This record gives sequence, C-alpha cells and structure tokens, in this order.
Amino acid sequence: MKQDSNIPYKIYLEESEMPKSWYNLRADMPVKPAPLLNPETFEPMTAEELGTVFCDELVKQELDNETAYYPIPQEIRDFYKMYRPSPLVRAYCLEEKLNTPAKIYYKFEGNNTSGSHKLNSAIAQAYYAKNQGLKGVTTETGAGQWGTALSMACAYLGLDCQVYMVKVSYEQKPFRREVMKTYGASVTPSPSETTNVGRKILEEHPGTTGSLGCAISEAVEAATSQEGYRYVLGSVLNQVMLHQSIIGLETKAALDKYNITPDIIIGCAGGGSNLGGLIAPFMGEKLRKEKDYQFIAVEPASCPSLTRGKYAYDFCDTGKVTPLAKMYTLGHGFIPSANHAGGLRYHGMSSVLSELYDEGLMEARSVEQTAVFEAAKMFAQVEGILPAPESSHAIRVAIDEALKCKETGEEKTIVFGLTGTGYFDMVAYGKFNDGEMSDYIPTDEDLQPGFDSLPEIPNQ
Amino acid sequence: MKQDSNIPYKIYLEESEMPKSWYNLRADMPVKPAPLLNPETFEPMTAEELGTVFCDELVKQELDNETAYYPIPQEIRDFYKMYRPSPLVRAYCLEEKLNTPAKIYYKFEGNNTSGSHKLNSAIAQAYYAKNQGLKGVTTETGAGQWGTALSMACAYLGLDCQVYMVKVSYEQKPFRREVMKTYGASVTPSPSETTNVGRKILEEHPGTTGSLGCAISEAVEAATSQEGYRYVLGSVLNQVMLHQSIIGLETKAALDKYNITPDIIIGCAGGGSNLGGLIAPFMGEKLRKEKDYQFIAVEPASCPSLTRGKYAYDFCDTGKVTPLAKMYTLGHGFIPSANHAGGLRYHGMSSVLSELYDEGLMEARSVEQTAVFEAAKMFAQVEGILPAPESSHAIRVAIDEALKCKETGEEKTIVFGLTGTGYFDMVAYGKFNDGEMSDYIPTDEDLQPGFDSLPEIPNQ
Repeated sequence: MKQDSNIPYKIYLEESEMPKSWYNLRADMPVKPAPLLNPETFEPMTAEELGTVFCDELVKQELDNETAYYPIPQEIRDFYKMYRPSPLVRAYCLEEKLNTPAKIYYKFEGNNTSGSHKLNSAIAQAYYAKNQGLKGVTTETGAGQWGTALSMACAYLGLDCQVYMVKVSYEQKPFRREVMKTYGASVTPSPSETTNVGRKILEEHPGTTGSLGCAISEAVEAATSQEGYRYVLGSVLNQVMLHQSIIGLETKAALDKYNITPDIIIGCAGGGSNLGGLIAPFMGEKLRKEKDYQFIAVEPASCPSLTRGKYAYDFCDTGKVTPLAKMYTLGHGFIPSANHAGGLRYHGMSSVLSELYDEGLMEARSVEQTAVFEAAKMFAQVEGILPAPESSHAIRVAIDEALKCKETGEEKTIVFGLTGTGYFDMVAYGKFNDGEMSDYIPTDEDLQPGFDSLPEIPNQ
Repeated sequence: MKQDSNIPYKIYLEESEMPKSWYNLRADMPVKPAPLLNPETFEPMTAEELGTVFCDELVKQELDNETAYYPIPQEIRDFYKMYRPSPLVRAYCLEEKLNTPAKIYYKFEGNNTSGSHKLNSAIAQAYYAKNQGLKGVTTETGAGQWGTALSMACAYLGLDCQVYMVKVSYEQKPFRREVMKTYGASVTPSPSETTNVGRKILEEHPGTTGSLGCAISEAVEAATSQEGYRYVLGSVLNQVMLHQSIIGLETKAALDKYNITPDIIIGCAGGGSNLGGLIAPFMGEKLRKEKDYQFIAVEPASCPSLTRGKYAYDFCDTGKVTPLAKMYTLGHGFIPSANHAGGLRYHGMSSVLSELYDEGLMEARSVEQTAVFEAAKMFAQVEGILPAPESSHAIRVAIDEALKCKETGEEKTIVFGLTGTGYFDMVAYGKFNDGEMSDYIPTDEDLQPGFDSLPEIPNQ
C-alpha cells in the first residue's frame, strides 16, 4: 500500500486544535439569503414570531446575517469531545482501487451512536433549550437519524425529548425507534391522534403511513401547545448550518496542518446541513476572494431540488404550519417515489445553499440510486466503512471525479463528506445485493403536482 | 464538566506509536496452557494434524509457547490503520454521574463496521490464508459479529469467505447477514444440507434452529472437504489471543504516555479473545513480577463457564469434530437458556485464561442480564455510545467497582474493555425498554446435562 510519508491515514486534531467558534457563512455573503416570511402577512418573520416556535438564542442565530463567529459554549464543546474531532481520512485504498492520480480525503462523521453528523446541531439546540429553562423539545424524524441524535443530546442534558416519527418508519424500522427509547425519548408514530393536525390528516387520509412533512406539522403543534417546549429541526435552517460548520472548520484545520489545498469539495444534499457545514469556511474564502474551490452538491435523481427545482418561496412542511422560506424546491406537495431508498427526500434546500447555487458559486449533480449503491459497496469493501446511502451520493461523485483525473492525469485533491454509516439501512442494501433495486427519474409531469403546490407570493 | 488538565477525553496514539508486534503472553507464563489433544489418540495435536484445518502460520502461532513478540506484517498494519488506533477514553461523564473518586477509562473497539474487536484477528487470519495461496476460508457466526469482521477482511484481500450462520440468527437478524453479503461473503444458514454433519443434524433434529456448536462443525467440514480452504475461528484459540494483544498493547502505550497506572482491568469474557487481548501485556508484567494489577473477567450468570464450570478437557464444538481443549467448560452439550439475550454464550473459555484463572492470577464474576442492561443504558446516556450487550457486562462491573470507591473514598484507576456497539442488538434493548427482560440463573441441575457431555480422558 502506497502512503505519502508525511500524511497519516487518518488526521485527528488534538483537543487543543478543535474549533472554539462556529463560523456563520452568511456574514461573508454579499447577497444574503432571503428572509423567512410570515405566510399570512408575507412580511419577514420577526424574532418575536419565531420565538413562539424556537428558543430565543436559536432565533437570534437564525436571523443574524452579520456575526461571522459564534463562540461555542463550553458545555457543547465538552459534549463534542465525546465524539469529536472526527477523523479526516485519506482514502489510500480507494485511490489504489481506482488507480487514480487524484488524492481523495473524506471527513467521517459517523463515529457516534446517532451514526451521523446530526449530533453536532442536536446538542447545540438542546443546550440552548435547557439554558432557557425549558422542559423539553419536540421534533420529527424520518428513518430516525435526527431523532436519535436529539434523544442523545437531551439524555445528556436531562431534557424531555418528544419525537414524531413517520409511521411507516416507526413500524418498519423499529431499531432506531428503540435507540431513541433507550436514550429516554418518547416516540410517537405520525400522523397521530395527539395533535389537531394529526387528527385532521388521519380523518382525510385514513390508513396513511405518514410523511416527513406531516410529522413536522405535528411536532410544531406539539411544541407550541405545551408550556415550556420548543420545536427543533435537524436541517434546512440557518442555525443548523451554523452548528454544522464545525465539520468544515475541523476539515480545514486538518488540511492546513498538512499544507493540503483541496481542488474539489463534495457533499450530499438533502436539506443541506452537512454540505453547508462542510463547505462553509472554504466558501468563505471563495467569497472573500482569498482562494477558489470547486463545490459539488450531490442529490438523488428522484428528489432533484437543486437540479430541477424552482427558486421560490415555499412552505417547509406539508401541513403549511411553518413560515415560508425562499429555496430551491420541488414544492411542499412533492412526494418522492416509493422507489427511492435512502434519505435526501426533502422537497426543499437550505436558503443559504440555494442562494449560493443560484449565484453559480456551487455546482449540483443528481445521481441514480443503483450507481450510488455500487459506489457504496466498492467503498465499503476497500475502505472498510459501510456508508449511509445518503453519504454514498457524495462517494459516487468523488469516484467519478477521481476517474476523470485518471483520464486526464490530473492530481487533483478531492475532499468529500462521509456523513454517516449505513448500519440501519440494511434493507436497502439487501435489495441492492439481491438485484432488486431500480432507478427512477421523475418526468416533468411527475414533478408538476409538487410545483402546483407552491404558494402564490405577492411581488415575488 | 471536570477534566484533568493533562488528560484528554480520548487518547489516540499517533500512527508512529502504534504497536509493531503482537505480544504472546504464553512466553511469560511459568505454567503453559495445556495443549490441544487429538480426541482419538489423546496425544497432543501435531502441527501436521492442525495444518489440515488451519493455515500453516496460524498453526505455528497456535503451538508456540515461547516467542514473546511476533512482528505484525506490514499489510496487516496497513489494514489496522484504517480503524486503529482505537481510542482510550476517559469516562469523565460516567464518573460525574456516579459521583465517584475513581478514574475510569475504556478502550473502545467498536469504531469499525464490524462493530467490535473481532476485526483485529479476522484480518490476521485472512492475511495468512492469502499468503499461503489459499482460495478462501470458512467460519461460523452466531449473531454475525465475527462473520462480519471476517467478510470485511476477506473483501479487502480478495479472498473467498464462506460463513455458516446459526439459522435462528440468519432468519431473525437479517441485517448482519446483509452486511456480510455486501462484503461479498456467502452466508449459509446452519444446519444446512451442504455438509454431512449438517444433514445428520437435520435428520436427527428436523426443524432445529441451529447452534454455534453445529455451525462450527459444518464450517470445519466445509474447510477440510474443499481444495484450497481452511477454517478460521474468532475466539478461544491461542492465535486469536495473540492477535487481540493489539488491544492491550495500545491501551498500555496510551496509559504510559500519560503516566497512568491502572489498579483494576476488567473485560467481558465469552471465549476470552477480548479479555485476553486487553490484559495480555499487563498480565505479562504481573507474571514477570514487575507490577501488580487486579484483573476481573465478567461473564453472564446464565453461561457461567469460569465461575461454575469445570477445568477439564472438552470438545470446542457440539459435533465433536474439533480437538480437545483443556478449559473451564460447562460441557459441549451445554445450551444457554432462551432467556439469555446477548452473546457470551460459548460453553468454554480460552485455555490461556483458564490456566491463569486456575492459578488465581485473575478473578471472575458473573452478572445478571437486567443489571447489565441497566448499566448499558446508563452508559449510553452519559457517555453517548450505545454499547453491545457483551461489552455491557464489563461496564456493569466497572460501575460496581467505581461505586465501591465512592464508599471507601479510594481513587482507584479502572480500565475496562468496551468491545463493541449494540446497533444490531436493538431487539434485546427493546425487550429491556419494555420491561420484558428477566434474569435466569441456572440451577446445579440445569448445568448437569452439560457436564454429563464431558468426554472421558485417560489419566486426566
């Protein structure tokens, strides 16, 4: 096995080298992301309005487009020490397998029980809730990654955690449900009889197995109807991207330590939290014209919000209880095909990333799922880590770019985000192993019902 | 959160500090472990006899009671770099939760896709098979931890991997099966129609859901009946303990780096591979009278081979196709109660550990499973890692010892082995969460059928 004498397989920062502040990319954006709008007045949401749903400090972070660095509170830094710094791994074995002159690195966020990067924001959001003297938080979860992360953070801080879990996952993926319960969370299958919006949905669609959009609506209602509770969300929001900047800051510190400058930075994109966090400090340099990088967002061909969506104001949920966000969206009425196996099934995309993409500062690619699982299997076999289907979207494009380098002979340095592990995704892997997985690319007609659900905004 | 200013949460060795040799504890044992016997002649097994089942180099390692250090081949060291060094973690949060003056450390072996320490020996055994020019290896697996580790190692080296998986696990725990298949292994539910011993068992016990002992018998037959194949085993054997010494060597190097001397070292014990590997270099110091430590082996009350077994020659498998090993055993006919949730269900114990225990150099404790899951849940909530049920046996006793320190005020330093994660054990956690888990301590009468199965050895 070849190994550059001065570059270890895995770069771990020392505790003393870990970032002490989060970085707020919005501070360096010449054009700020569009503000959240009140869906009734179409006026920008005020801190007061947002404060009924979110914790005060998180509202501040959500609205703050100016402060570049937020010191990370000591208690959050202590929690980070339990599973961070995460390793930046040189993919020597993958490079050898591909016989490419490219140098490939991945930032691996899966070495924790939640199995993903979601914990970085979960602990921050739980901390601010606790700090405000709240009793607990509510949230939704699909397959359970975010719910698991939040339940871990709440257990650590002694905060109540109420999770609305999409019913089909609650029933068919009981393992993550049990992880959440082991961490003391209460987990309710959604739609449920515990909320007005849940009861309404059940009445209109008896026997429905639920959706992420429904679960968001229920969790928001649960937060606003209980004394001492607030709602928290694992992606899409500006505050989440702020917390996730820890990924990019650690990555940059590790690269700088060894004088490595990446050419291409790649991340999978669902709501955008991982990608946004990974690229933040690098994009900051690009915006400040200090350095240039190529950024690639990778999304599923079956849920192509960046590559085929519209840049428009839309609701963040199906039940239309949230504010309006300007984003690349397939419409809040969009429902991914049952054929689609993994996560990354959200109809919209972070406003920050949407703005950057719209300005041409970042590229986007869509990939089909059998090609994604092929990349996942190859990666698992040579690098030893069984990747999450979501993360494997980034692996796919990293491999594609490395193979291009093989053609051209270029020794590009490629960095991608390996957001998590696939241990709870073995049903999808099993389908792939048995040759039962197929691809699906929606036609323009398939996408139309989602676009038809877009709200009409005066003067947009 | 208190933190000793000079001790990080997690101690990671540098690549350059990683052990370059395995340590063979037998070299320092004044009384060597008893040799394997041929079950027909009752003579010690020769290298030639063992060579029909195991690879040549592994036979050499198995029989070598003299060589203290084995250099680790470069290709294995490269593989180790993919997931090692594993962190030695200071359990600051657990200490705070227990309000104990004790200092608790754990060596965490679960940060890899196999989810346990098993990978340390899997790659070594696969490497020597490859090096001997073999086509592939066969093995058995229960819930799938060892099979997963072996399939990962074989995928990396391009070796065929045939796994006999206990049928009840094959059917009820399909996830690990799919992980193995993703790594290219063929997985056969045992007992099967593919071997003579399998067919015989199926004829005698139609509808049986299998056992580890049956699966061993099938895997051994499969290895010896195919050209270019050998059998490999994940625990019990001397060679496995040699490879697993990497755990203890890293632990010792990390402790030495910070001038920490442990008072108590604790590990769970099934076949003994993890415990043996963890304590090896420390036990070496004790045997050489350089230092003294307290060692505690922890086993389930429902499968108490050390605390209630007999020190006698016994078969390693149910089908009686293996050599005889002298060990603490419940008899190869022992079947753990269906009540027993986790691993650690093997009837015997490593010959090396058996000898050390018999000489009083190591203690053993048995613990009941609800107490184990209570410890697991507490640990998960404060330390953030969801532990394997097996590892949680060690957690239980580490907590018990830390609570004793609270009583006495002693500031003991406790080190325990956290062998793996519980992500594939959520059915057991679910039972515990729902209050449906109970304890079971076999009566002397319950244990008698196992003891009745012990073979009669002349002059024993």
